[in-house]
Amino acid sequence: MKSGEIEQLIHLMSKLPALGPRSARRAVLHLLSKKETFFIPLIQSMQSVLDHVRSCPECGNMDTCSPCSICSDPNRDKGQICVVRDVTDLWALERAGVFRGVYHVLGGLLSALDGIGPDELNIQRLVDKISQHPATEVILALPATVEGQATVHYLTEKLESFPIHISTLSRGVPIGGELDYLDDGTLQTAFNARRDI
Amino acid sequence: MKSGEIEQLIHLMSKLPALGPRSARRAVLHLLSKKETFFIPLIQSMQSVLDHVRSCPECGNMDTCSPCSICSDPNRDKGQICVVRDVTDLWALERAGVFRGVYHVLGGLLSALDGIGPDELNIQRLVDKISQHPATEVILALPATVEGQATVHYLTEKLESFPIHISTLSRGVPIGGELDYLDDGTLQTAFNARRDI
Repeated sequence: MKSGEIEQLIHLMSKLPALGPRSARRAVLHLLSKKETFFIPLIQSMQSVLDHVRSCPECGNMDTCSPCSICSDPNRDKGQICVVRDVTDLWALERAGVFRGVYHVLGGLLSALDGIGPDELNIQRLVDKISQHPATEVILALPATVEGQATVHYLTEKLESFPIHISTLSRGVPIGGELDYLDDGTLQTAFNARRDI
Repeated sequence: MKSGEIEQLIHLMSKLPALGPRSARRAVLHLLSKKETFFIPLIQSMQSVLDHVRSCPECGNMDTCSPCSICSDPNRDKGQICVVRDVTDLWALERAGVFRGVYHVLGGLLSALDGIGPDELNIQRLVDKISQHPATEVILALPATVEGQATVHYLTEKLESFPIHISTLSRGVPIGGELDYLDDGTLQTAFNARRDI
């Protein structure tokens, strides 16, 4: 007994990550109960993002300016390129504020199971970029998963002909991590990569 | 390093029930990665709901027609009024398909803690409706919580001068429920309200 419009919106909302049919229904009713203060601003904000946000042709970041504000920032070191899987990971590193170079977004990871090969990823653009503007260091900040490691190996081979330093993030016990709760793989890695204090 | 537009949209999305800052970021990137197939249809669907969906003046349901399709359905028994807390609960009963009368949405429950009194709820409209068009039965389909029970008591007193049958939903073991997992209150209620077979 819901109208077609509401059904349609619930159906679309339920396709958002983290929302299911029940939470989509609650979200739509929440929007309808706060039309002026929430629903209208949300639609306007979505329309503005749709109209203005583009993928940066340099690095793949999402921004309103092109190239993005990171690529066009003169204070950032173009010689250091941090390779990330997606924009979420780029934002996570920016929130941590640990890096003052530029990024390169792959748009995914190599995965034989999902049929994602090198041609599906933004890899050739990275190689071209390094050929044209030699970098000093490439940091492969990819997930510590099977797909992440496969991508690290592929990129390392692809880039070994260039005179650059290639690094990955360290593996080990996360800060605040209790040993008892860690998986065997992490414990073994942390043990083997132990450091002198 | 995210643009103002993206930050603003993430902020708004994170206020939706069931979404937090992290899932709102993922949702926004999901929208940006599927502009044509998902983002644009979602904005259009939202705009359509915003433009066309209204609260029914009769019962408080949300629909594109006014009165809503339930109130204007000649096959539904206007003599049976089912009182519900909100539109989510109305939709839940409609999905179950157990009721062929009309509804009345209160818009909340009496709550001394939250400062919600009878004047904040859609109660006077219910009394007026019953005065003008005598009903045979009012079903108080409210949650089995302290606030729900307080509202049931208030409505029962308010409606006792009318010659109508007032009922509430039965309490007991939910279908498929294991006794071992039920709380003491439910078990006690189900035991005391035991029925001959």
